[in-house]
Amino acid sequence: MYSHASGPNPVAGQGLDALPAFAGLKAAPGAFAARHIGPTPHDQDTMLRALGVASLDALTDQTLPAAIRTTAPMGLGDGWSETAVLDHLRALADQNTVLTSLIGQGYYGTILPAVIQRNILENPAWYTAYTPYQPEISQGRLEALLNFQTMVTELTGLDIANASLLDEATAAAEAMALARRVATSRATAFFVDAQCHPQTIAVLKTRAEPMGFGIIVGNPATDLTAADVFGAIVQYPGTSGQITDPRPVIEALHAAGAIAVVAADPLALTVLAAPGTLGADIAIGSTQRFGVPMGFGGPHAAYMAVRDAYKRSMPGRLVGVSVDSEGRPAYRLALQTREQHIRREKATSNICTAQVLLAVIAGMYAVYHGPDGLVAIARRVHGLAATLAAGLRALGCVVETEHFFDTITVQAGDNAPALLERARAAGMNLRDSGAGRVGISLDETSSARTVLAVWSVFCTDSTRVAQVAQTLPASPAALPAGLDRAAPFMQQAVFRSCRSETDMLRYLRRLSDKDLALDRTMIPLGSCTMKLNATVEMLPITWPGFCDLHPFAPADQARGYQALLADLERWLCAISGYDAVSFQPNSGAQGEYAGLLAIRAYHRARGDEGRTVCLIPASAHGTNPASAQMAGMQVVVVRCDTHGNIDLEDMRAKVAAHAATLAAVMITYPSTHGVFEENMRTICDLVHDAGGQVYVDGANMNAQVGLARPADYGGDVSHFNLHKTFCIPHGGGGPGMGPIGVRAHLAPYLPTNPTSPQALAVSAAPFGSASILPISWAYIRLMGDDGLKRATQVAILNANYIVSRLSEAYPVLYRGAQGRVAHECILDLRPIKDSTGVSVDDIAKRLVDFGFHAPTVSFPVAGTVMIEPTESEGLAELDRFCNAMLAIRAEVSAIEQGETAVEHSALRHAPHTAATVTADVWPHPYTRQQGAFPPGVHPATKYWPPVSRIDNVYGDRNLVCSCPPLSEWEDTATPA
Amino acid sequence: MYSHASGPNPVAGQGLDALPAFAGLKAAPGAFAARHIGPTPHDQDTMLRALGVASLDALTDQTLPAAIRTTAPMGLGDGWSETAVLDHLRALADQNTVLTSLIGQGYYGTILPAVIQRNILENPAWYTAYTPYQPEISQGRLEALLNFQTMVTELTGLDIANASLLDEATAAAEAMALARRVATSRATAFFVDAQCHPQTIAVLKTRAEPMGFGIIVGNPATDLTAADVFGAIVQYPGTSGQITDPRPVIEALHAAGAIAVVAADPLALTVLAAPGTLGADIAIGSTQRFGVPMGFGGPHAAYMAVRDAYKRSMPGRLVGVSVDSEGRPAYRLALQTREQHIRREKATSNICTAQVLLAVIAGMYAVYHGPDGLVAIARRVHGLAATLAAGLRALGCVVETEHFFDTITVQAGDNAPALLERARAAGMNLRDSGAGRVGISLDETSSARTVLAVWSVFCTDSTRVAQVAQTLPASPAALPAGLDRAAPFMQQAVFRSCRSETDMLRYLRRLSDKDLALDRTMIPLGSCTMKLNATVEMLPITWPGFCDLHPFAPADQARGYQALLADLERWLCAISGYDAVSFQPNSGAQGEYAGLLAIRAYHRARGDEGRTVCLIPASAHGTNPASAQMAGMQVVVVRCDTHGNIDLEDMRAKVAAHAATLAAVMITYPSTHGVFEENMRTICDLVHDAGGQVYVDGANMNAQVGLARPADYGGDVSHFNLHKTFCIPHGGGGPGMGPIGVRAHLAPYLPTNPTSPQALAVSAAPFGSASILPISWAYIRLMGDDGLKRATQVAILNANYIVSRLSEAYPVLYRGAQGRVAHECILDLRPIKDSTGVSVDDIAKRLVDFGFHAPTVSFPVAGTVMIEPTESEGLAELDRFCNAMLAIRAEVSAIEQGETAVEHSALRHAPHTAATVTADVWPHPYTRQQGAFPPGVHPATKYWPPVSRIDNVYGDRNLVCSCPPLSEWEDTATPA
Repeated sequence: MYSHASGPNPVAGQGLDALPAFAGLKAAPGAFAARHIGPTPHDQDTMLRALGVASLDALTDQTLPAAIRTTAPMGLGDGWSETAVLDHLRALADQNTVLTSLIGQGYYGTILPAVIQRNILENPAWYTAYTPYQPEISQGRLEALLNFQTMVTELTGLDIANASLLDEATAAAEAMALARRVATSRATAFFVDAQCHPQTIAVLKTRAEPMGFGIIVGNPATDLTAADVFGAIVQYPGTSGQITDPRPVIEALHAAGAIAVVAADPLALTVLAAPGTLGADIAIGSTQRFGVPMGFGGPHAAYMAVRDAYKRSMPGRLVGVSVDSEGRPAYRLALQTREQHIRREKATSNICTAQVLLAVIAGMYAVYHGPDGLVAIARRVHGLAATLAAGLRALGCVVETEHFFDTITVQAGDNAPALLERARAAGMNLRDSGAGRVGISLDETSSARTVLAVWSVFCTDSTRVAQVAQTLPASPAALPAGLDRAAPFMQQAVFRSCRSETDMLRYLRRLSDKDLALDRTMIPLGSCTMKLNATVEMLPITWPGFCDLHPFAPADQARGYQALLADLERWLCAISGYDAVSFQPNSGAQGEYAGLLAIRAYHRARGDEGRTVCLIPASAHGTNPASAQMAGMQVVVVRCDTHGNIDLEDMRAKVAAHAATLAAVMITYPSTHGVFEENMRTICDLVHDAGGQVYVDGANMNAQVGLARPADYGGDVSHFNLHKTFCIPHGGGGPGMGPIGVRAHLAPYLPTNPTSPQALAVSAAPFGSASILPISWAYIRLMGDDGLKRATQVAILNANYIVSRLSEAYPVLYRGAQGRVAHECILDLRPIKDSTGVSVDDIAKRLVDFGFHAPTVSFPVAGTVMIEPTESEGLAELDRFCNAMLAIRAEVSAIEQGETAVEHSALRHAPHTAATVTADVWPHPYTRQQGAFPPGVHPATKYWPPVSRIDNVYGDRNLVCSCPPLSEWEDTATPA
Repeated sequence: MYSHASGPNPVAGQGLDALPAFAGLKAAPGAFAARHIGPTPHDQDTMLRALGVASLDALTDQTLPAAIRTTAPMGLGDGWSETAVLDHLRALADQNTVLTSLIGQGYYGTILPAVIQRNILENPAWYTAYTPYQPEISQGRLEALLNFQTMVTELTGLDIANASLLDEATAAAEAMALARRVATSRATAFFVDAQCHPQTIAVLKTRAEPMGFGIIVGNPATDLTAADVFGAIVQYPGTSGQITDPRPVIEALHAAGAIAVVAADPLALTVLAAPGTLGADIAIGSTQRFGVPMGFGGPHAAYMAVRDAYKRSMPGRLVGVSVDSEGRPAYRLALQTREQHIRREKATSNICTAQVLLAVIAGMYAVYHGPDGLVAIARRVHGLAATLAAGLRALGCVVETEHFFDTITVQAGDNAPALLERARAAGMNLRDSGAGRVGISLDETSSARTVLAVWSVFCTDSTRVAQVAQTLPASPAALPAGLDRAAPFMQQAVFRSCRSETDMLRYLRRLSDKDLALDRTMIPLGSCTMKLNATVEMLPITWPGFCDLHPFAPADQARGYQALLADLERWLCAISGYDAVSFQPNSGAQGEYAGLLAIRAYHRARGDEGRTVCLIPASAHGTNPASAQMAGMQVVVVRCDTHGNIDLEDMRAKVAAHAATLAAVMITYPSTHGVFEENMRTICDLVHDAGGQVYVDGANMNAQVGLARPADYGGDVSHFNLHKTFCIPHGGGGPGMGPIGVRAHLAPYLPTNPTSPQALAVSAAPFGSASILPISWAYIRLMGDDGLKRATQVAILNANYIVSRLSEAYPVLYRGAQGRVAHECILDLRPIKDSTGVSVDDIAKRLVDFGFHAPTVSFPVAGTVMIEPTESEGLAELDRFCNAMLAIRAEVSAIEQGETAVEHSALRHAPHTAATVTADVWPHPYTRQQGAFPPGVHPATKYWPPVSRIDNVYGDRNLVCSCPPLSEWEDTATPA
């Protein structure tokens, strides 16, 4: 029990701190902002002096065009203290009522092993890592993801699995798109098992319509004509709990050249025949119940596995095994050209963000339990469910489900509402399956007491319940005949190596030590805002009051979440100028898609069906055209000028040419080139005048919070990458959150609850990954108006400081009208390549020797690096980075001057491993110490990459995407 | 709000799981034990086969003498699941009522910065570390402790500070003993300021009496005759809040050759003149309010600082700066010969365990805030207190305290009980200072609302309160004139380097990466049981319901703690056979002391004042004789025979010789030599027959839980090292907990509440370090009868397995009657030293190259190592260790055979740093790879020691015990 000093407040209003008696005694309102922002005020002054600018405001004036500046405060008030924020969030968590959830429907109670919770989910070494695009410093999480992929291929019986998708419903939609791409059938319809979860059906319908696919929902045994479809999805077990043998359907589909997709529960798969062995082409599903809390809907990792033949068409990230320059096995992302942001408008998916942190957790749950442990859990859950069903039948209930794993459906007729209410009174949520049917799903957390409690809900005669409990014999299994899992699975060494917590703990530490994350170095990416993820923001997300809520729990049990969502919507509107927000999109790309769907629906509602053209500048992130394509739009590319700005004349011409069919323009602002274009308002006006809508991509919101508002300068809709600007940690490549803000005229077209009739749904859960929203809530509340604005100004200061230190050594590709960059800058390395042969990769890998994560390479311009320091890096770290870049430039100069040949340089042989620099033979002209300890690197605190440069081509040519058997490793190296 | 599926239970009793319907559906009762115990059942079979033993029970029969075996179960029942344990602990935490504490009296509300909480207190890299006796692998925590020492010397204005003591009260007692040792005065009395906290006075009285010191409590201004005392302690500010200038007292003491001790609050010292500048010889106090939760009494770190002249007499651990073999600055424990377990019966203190983890936190709190931040906190707290006092006076209250920092005392007369009650109703605890006086202490968590709430307690007329609030002017400071802190403090670089959370996070990571803890390797000590500290055991200790309780909060607010203490007492009795337990001792040594005090009191109560001899075997840990000495006993040493057993004939002789004066025997069982002696019962009987009592040192309880009970085979009293056997993590050298169990006849003489009249108190808090007791509670509850017994058996198996693998290479010094060791073994390295010159240190440091923490060196026998693997290490890790030891033996053999000279061997130059093995010049006959990557060590996962072998002699000759100015470091090496 918690109580706080309160007492009656005899002083009206909130003005206590303003009274003379308490003058100067308030805790500093900017205290958190000063912790979040890296440079101290003193250091900011030093940096401003280096830029020759008098103040942060003066720098802002030089950087942002006056036309887009906002001067009014956002109205968020002062930043709160960390204590006040935690107290308030605790109160919100307490306003959520956590009942035992027996709802099922894709979300289950689960036990996250404490050792995994503490050492992954609560450990910055894991949660602050970036997407493993630089594989040499990402071997730990890549191995963890390979475990996940291996677990999925083993459970599904398919050949290859990706490293997670956003949720089961969107995974089903991705499977549908993949099916269309690979099916030989020329049909345009997709069949959906009515036994799929309702949210899956809603997302499939939403996604199919703009792509021109028909959706047929029905019972595959009776309603499917295989020749009419290019594919079908069946759920195994079905949402009602019933298990049907999918083989007849799969065979019929194959006979018609159509693709068979099976949505399967991974825990059930430990005791049921694998989809792959039953003939499925694609399997998808959610791994939530492998240790990831329900979290009111997310985040958790969905999976997709496919036959080998389809691997090059599979969406999502894929981890593969390759070799490093010395022949050691090494992991890296495979087949990246397959990824959607590379394929741009040719893409059939816009998947970019994955659910890495959650996939890592699910994979580690499998490592922790091993195959035997998983089977024991599954058998116990099944046994309890069989007992539950037998007891209910003995009590006279009509259990509809004959063959099931953990879920049964009871036909309760008119009695259903009363039963659901009685269950709630007893502390349990059952599922209202409609038409008098009540669903009950058991899970890992269930026990005999749970079963007894459910019996007591269905029969109020306690004597009779007691009699049934005491006389009921052990129930036989209720799995269907012929669908037993026959072969052993997950026999790889990793799934047998961590039976003790000590072994598990050390394995997690060993992996995390291989990686570089924000807890050791700045990650100066331009493609992502890698700022501080403050601990206080992270503490609440593992509180039961936020973790343990089912997304479809009755609304009156989620009062805390509702209050939090309302706050966050209000604040994001204040920050952006928009009028309404949807929290459904789980990533930036999904936000883009949802925003474009809203634009599309808006035009259609006005009878403007013909508006289908989407203008996108050449500099756009690849997800922009991919999202437009998925939203049924035709992408027209607008040129950029030599300064990196949108070519205004080309824009005018394209708008004019497509005036009648113009749906939208998508603009990232400030641009991916790192500048605030002067013409933004002009462009927005142009598009509006032609009847189009303006999508402002919010990826670079970190350059404008508190300084400019998209809705004010012309945006109709934007997504907010909460995992960039608003402090949700990157998790090694996910989770993300991409809520969208819209102006009032688009609000009616925002996504709706996926279980509502005729839902427009982009995610399985109504509010996307709700359980990580407390992070962004806390950040905004801690910073307040002044803190947020100051953060933006310092982000710009930091970027311009880097420019001031590096621009003599490396040309800065683009600048704004007054010579300033926004919050990031692009360094052009092409002249160096031309003069010396030193590549962008050489420099990126050499930075590893200095202990840095490389900047974004070759995006948005090939042969360049893009650097975004964020406001959270202090002057010392900025200088450490600049010094490293200058030291590298000196190494380049030595090549330019002929002192060293590039092929013998430290640049080319970077990164240097401990094995390399301690070898008996040292073949290089530079010394071991120059290789391993370039200027500023101290041996006592050196980060050692576990592998040297990785061969990407080898890996893609010799694709291996699951854990090799132990014997293969032994041939090459001792596992480390 | 949390709710659980429960409903009415129509089945009587707990037998639900036993019904046929639920047969086999219970979650496995041994699930946690299987995670805690390292070797799998399969591996256990493998190891038993290697020993040629059929079963664990058979091995137990070979190891434990039949005479001491217990066969009855302990009655603790089945182990619970992790979920059930967390649920129960959450319920207990909820039974504690956390009010805002304004009690003060040495315990204050504080804000633990989240980044420190997550990355130190909740991070196994910090909390599972061992005492830094092996400094090369402990540079991170040694630096953190040096920060703590520097903070203390800066705040106190004294020359040298140790790295923490157990609590303020025992620190005062240590200061008293030190004063007696160094004072030139020959007086035997010690003066205690009545303004000291009551618990401090109680512990001083308890400690003084057996040492023959008189204690005079009074007002130093009026009651002190300096010539009558060897020292005095004054509190600054006093317990009532009043600040008195200590200079007149100090001057009087000095004039009489007596020592001046000042107990000072560290937060107050940021604005008050430092004790050292006022002339104090010794300063002590608690650093609890530097970020460490009150925790119902502990743990937190006390400090002691002294003038340079007394440094070699100062008790407790001391971190000093030395150099490594290559001249780099390096930290290590300084002046270890000064330590009490080395001085044995010549000691005046038995201090061994420190409060390392808490000292690290307090030091990091200072790093996080820096001097300016600390002063800002202090000025704000003081300002609020001044306003509080002024307002109370305006409301007509009698505020007694004229000059104060954060605490005031109000004379409320008969109204006091009603005021205290009204405060509780408003959510606050005030201090009942007795005689109608009410104390109010503000702290970092206080605000204007707190002040207003207190006013409203003292005046129920809300209109009048409002009027005062609105009209009261800003209050002038209430610090006394002439005691302002003049000079700046904490100007060292480290206190200015971490203003942003990012910088703080990276600093913590950088330090922890330098150290080896249980999250990376086994720590095979014989002197401490370094077993798994399971995450689930650690989760509850940072819950507010356990953290935020004041130790002297009203009893009805601590119902959860009371239930937890009652459980734990019952279980420890069941495990040991004793009848009652005291939780007051904060360490094993303090437990010894408390136990001997109970024995002493028992004899005295029977009129046996003459029983003062304590027999202690030569093999005993050094704290045993030190504790006996402190308890006023004469130590008589009993010889050991060549098998490591107590020499029974010598024991008989000594008992006979001292029969009339025999107070006690202290025996560690199994012995520190790692064997179960056959004669244990005989010895106990001998002592009892002579009228003595038997103290069984519980340090080796891990070898007998579930197999033997000290009370059954003859013990009258034992302490339990909860931080060894019962899973409280070692924290890098503390916290510890040493509760004692006694048979019924000693129960009346257990320590009592330190605030009760005539208290017998060994700690400041009634239940010692209460907030870490949930760890041991959870461990016992998770393991149950079977799990605990199995753990003991596997601990013995693991030790004997190591013997089986290593005994051919290294002679095992002692074994039991049937050739088995207990849970640890001693390897004799003296023959190697004789034949090759390879020292124990050479082997210990070479193990670092293999990535291991060395075993205990040269204890209890010089020239040997003692190895205790514990039950938590699995077969793979045991083999990795044995393989390393055998590889080292091969290196020794090469020297024996003349292939290598010892001075050129990898053994002598170990440990090898990254700097060494990458140097351009490699002067050794072995290769770089042989140096850095001996067999089994993989470059990709190698642990690199940050420094090479450290020169202890240099460090003690050139003693530096605080952070050097930055400039000094720059001369030798770049800070890393």
